[in-house]
Amino acid sequence: MANDDNFKKVISHAKEYGYVFQSSEIYDGLSAVYDYAQNGVELKNNIREYWWKAMVQMHDNIVGIDAAIFMHPTTWKASGHVDAFNDPLIDNKDSKKRYRADVLVEDYCLKIEVKINKEVAKAAKRFGDAFNKDEFLSTNGRVLGYQEKIDSVLKRLGQSLEKEDLADVKALIEELEIADPLTGSKNWTDVKQFNLMFGTKLGASAEHATDLYLRPETAQGIFVNFLNVQKTGRMKIPFGIAQTGKAFRNEIVARQFIFRMREFEQMEMQFFIKPGTQKEWFEYWKDARLKWHESLGLGSENYRFHDHEKLAHYADAATDIEFNFPFGFKELEGIHSRTDFDLKQHEEYSGKKLQYFDPEENESYTPYVLETSIGLDRMFLAVFSNALQEEDLENGTTRTVLKLPAVLAPTKAAIFPLVKKDGLPEIAKQIVEDLKWDFNITYDEKDAVGRRYRRQDAVGTPFCITVDHDTLDDNSVTIRHRDTMEQKRVKIEDLKALIKAEVEMKYWLQRMF
Amino acid sequence: MANDDNFKKVISHAKEYGYVFQSSEIYDGLSAVYDYAQNGVELKNNIREYWWKAMVQMHDNIVGIDAAIFMHPTTWKASGHVDAFNDPLIDNKDSKKRYRADVLVEDYCLKIEVKINKEVAKAAKRFGDAFNKDEFLSTNGRVLGYQEKIDSVLKRLGQSLEKEDLADVKALIEELEIADPLTGSKNWTDVKQFNLMFGTKLGASAEHATDLYLRPETAQGIFVNFLNVQKTGRMKIPFGIAQTGKAFRNEIVARQFIFRMREFEQMEMQFFIKPGTQKEWFEYWKDARLKWHESLGLGSENYRFHDHEKLAHYADAATDIEFNFPFGFKELEGIHSRTDFDLKQHEEYSGKKLQYFDPEENESYTPYVLETSIGLDRMFLAVFSNALQEEDLENGTTRTVLKLPAVLAPTKAAIFPLVKKDGLPEIAKQIVEDLKWDFNITYDEKDAVGRRYRRQDAVGTPFCITVDHDTLDDNSVTIRHRDTMEQKRVKIEDLKALIKAEVEMKYWLQRMF
Repeated sequence: MANDDNFKKVISHAKEYGYVFQSSEIYDGLSAVYDYAQNGVELKNNIREYWWKAMVQMHDNIVGIDAAIFMHPTTWKASGHVDAFNDPLIDNKDSKKRYRADVLVEDYCLKIEVKINKEVAKAAKRFGDAFNKDEFLSTNGRVLGYQEKIDSVLKRLGQSLEKEDLADVKALIEELEIADPLTGSKNWTDVKQFNLMFGTKLGASAEHATDLYLRPETAQGIFVNFLNVQKTGRMKIPFGIAQTGKAFRNEIVARQFIFRMREFEQMEMQFFIKPGTQKEWFEYWKDARLKWHESLGLGSENYRFHDHEKLAHYADAATDIEFNFPFGFKELEGIHSRTDFDLKQHEEYSGKKLQYFDPEENESYTPYVLETSIGLDRMFLAVFSNALQEEDLENGTTRTVLKLPAVLAPTKAAIFPLVKKDGLPEIAKQIVEDLKWDFNITYDEKDAVGRRYRRQDAVGTPFCITVDHDTLDDNSVTIRHRDTMEQKRVKIEDLKALIKAEVEMKYWLQRMF
Repeated sequence: MANDDNFKKVISHAKEYGYVFQSSEIYDGLSAVYDYAQNGVELKNNIREYWWKAMVQMHDNIVGIDAAIFMHPTTWKASGHVDAFNDPLIDNKDSKKRYRADVLVEDYCLKIEVKINKEVAKAAKRFGDAFNKDEFLSTNGRVLGYQEKIDSVLKRLGQSLEKEDLADVKALIEELEIADPLTGSKNWTDVKQFNLMFGTKLGASAEHATDLYLRPETAQGIFVNFLNVQKTGRMKIPFGIAQTGKAFRNEIVARQFIFRMREFEQMEMQFFIKPGTQKEWFEYWKDARLKWHESLGLGSENYRFHDHEKLAHYADAATDIEFNFPFGFKELEGIHSRTDFDLKQHEEYSGKKLQYFDPEENESYTPYVLETSIGLDRMFLAVFSNALQEEDLENGTTRTVLKLPAVLAPTKAAIFPLVKKDGLPEIAKQIVEDLKWDFNITYDEKDAVGRRYRRQDAVGTPFCITVDHDTLDDNSVTIRHRDTMEQKRVKIEDLKALIKAEVEMKYWLQRMF
């Protein structure tokens, strides 16, 4: 199955089985905004809780907070978002369509790359086994010309953006004769910077209103509360503050389902450390965060680190944990050594000291910060797309199964009476009553048991438990495992412990600590 | 302690012990917005989880969703919020201060009520035991005059607002010679309606932008997803959809700490039922929701129902569950019989059928809706203010103790070594290691044990566990209960089960089902 088809299948399965709906679908949707449906909300909550328990509950020196989405507007002056959180945009005067200027240029280069790939394919066909791709790329004149073109265009784009020379970005677009991809028009406006923050007004009229922003990241809520948490929580460095919550970015090109949304949720932890220790903590958190991911069993081969070569102005080291999404390896989590940039900025703008008195060193200093920042929606997509599988069965049929980590599955077990009579539904319902205090449980008596199994496979329920006529005699039921389809006979009284051992969070957490 | 002092104490305790901070405090705060601090976030999360488990996990016919804050703008046309979610505002031309016109008039009436109360107090003093208040109120000429004035003013205000006759509201303010409470000026502008929704723009420029609103309630996210959830979840009426999440209202007068904030969180459940059954379901959910509250043990006397006499246009029955806050009985939760108003409105505006096919009746109909809607922040304030107590102890001292329901407490147990030597810290830390998989646990070795007890009392930790020299011999520790201050000697190996029985959610849920 091609990756594209695979991704389409992920999106349609997410809708069909109650994981993700397009927002406001009855009004034909709202672009790049999605709603989590009845199973999606449970999966999302379980991921959030798994992160929270691992980061906060398991660490004596990490606490959480829940800062509001609204913050004082000066926060975003201090953080640099008011001045520098921009995309360079250009409008086509004829089509009235708007584009990211840098993306237009990058797409131009992608088209040249397609030409290179065609040359490679042609040569590979011509030379057969004797073909050496690396040698071809470094000697073929036409290919070298293409590559030179790409390099020079991207270099100029990068330099112009860095110097904020937007006139040159426009000149570049015109020199390359880049046309509106929809209409072919080359009639462009100037390039302008547009801030990605959503604005709103607090207070009822323009005259009395305060301009607010919807936070574009949760991190600043931690920085402005740093001293209050440290003092009231009697925290000693090194210590961390964790937070999950919504953030908003007015992306011009938002796409790839829930991968890049205008409204999204972050799970961030800012770890406050002594200046000079940032290198070792950077390594520590790279390792710790990868262990968290690996504990879920999505496959180590699906993760890789991507170190940033070009660092943001506030960072002295940065890496992404990339995940193998249906559309390739992309950023899932970032680990950033942010130095004392943020606290120093807030000191400057607020006029308040944001320092830590170190009782061991008997001196005050501005702590350095090590950040781990993961997108909850991206983690959802990673887990969900990784879990969705089609299996060829021995009997020649296929089954669609959502092999979610059991700890994250929305429903832990489905209870079936084999038939809707002979007292079997009553026993099955009694099992639901007994188990529902501890787990999300569902009951299903409709259709043949085989169909019910398929339904629960597709929803991702780890266990199906069937009450049959033997149950009346032996007080036992058949428990079927989603992944192996193996069935076992177990006593009703043993069900709770058996399920608990597979789904309880603490057993999964033990894999990483 | 006067109620006002009591409330101030609640607010300062919330800050001092890491429950609630003012938002962006280093920038001198953002009015009517608050951040939940390291203990507050745990309490808030625990309340949310307690609601979710009771509403979703315990009900086979209730599922959750998590709809985005951004919704298609037509949603708010259909719901009536664009046209009718307004406050009547008036500006003072001299002071440039803005007020709610209806509140100015109501405050005027409150002042007359103060006069009545003074007359009552005077008469009570004069007549002593012989004083009959009801008789006095219904016979004293001056009091009757005051009461008549109040009644006629409020009647006229109500009529003018209902007819949207804002000119008459202004006329009323001028006739009553109401002055700006800050400056005494009577120089008023006209009264205007101001919509309480926060607006923002999707898309990067005014020309291409879509006007969005931050949702003023979470309910509509459920209504627009009703059919998708019903179909993909194969739900049968009666069934419910539950949701927790942020909502935003641009309140002109926001006050009373976290009771009325501009950004707040709701916990709502919409229960879809057959038309004609709404009366019985209204009674059912009144009863069920009260049981939920009572299970937490805040005291039955602190709750009361307040049935609405004047119903919203969409409702055919409505009641509030009011709680005895430090500032009196106020709305904590609403239970509303919303009829088919919302679904019908969305049908009209979307042109899509939002009906349910009832397999038993073999017919399609638009379901009626029964709503339960509780403010998470208000529930937080109810729990927190109810828990904060000052106790006089036998030794003549007082202690400040936060008697939170153990199931909701941020930290379940604090582990102390009696002294920082003789191997006691090592044993205490080992207990932390053993228990932290199951509970939020803290370790404290600083100061005398008595002071550590006081600290945990003030934070609301249900158990303190002390390792002393006897522990080295008998493998036992002293466990102290926060509320009774009773101490017991228990084996270390029994700690987990003992704490679990007091704090695990399922034991608390059993009190209501």
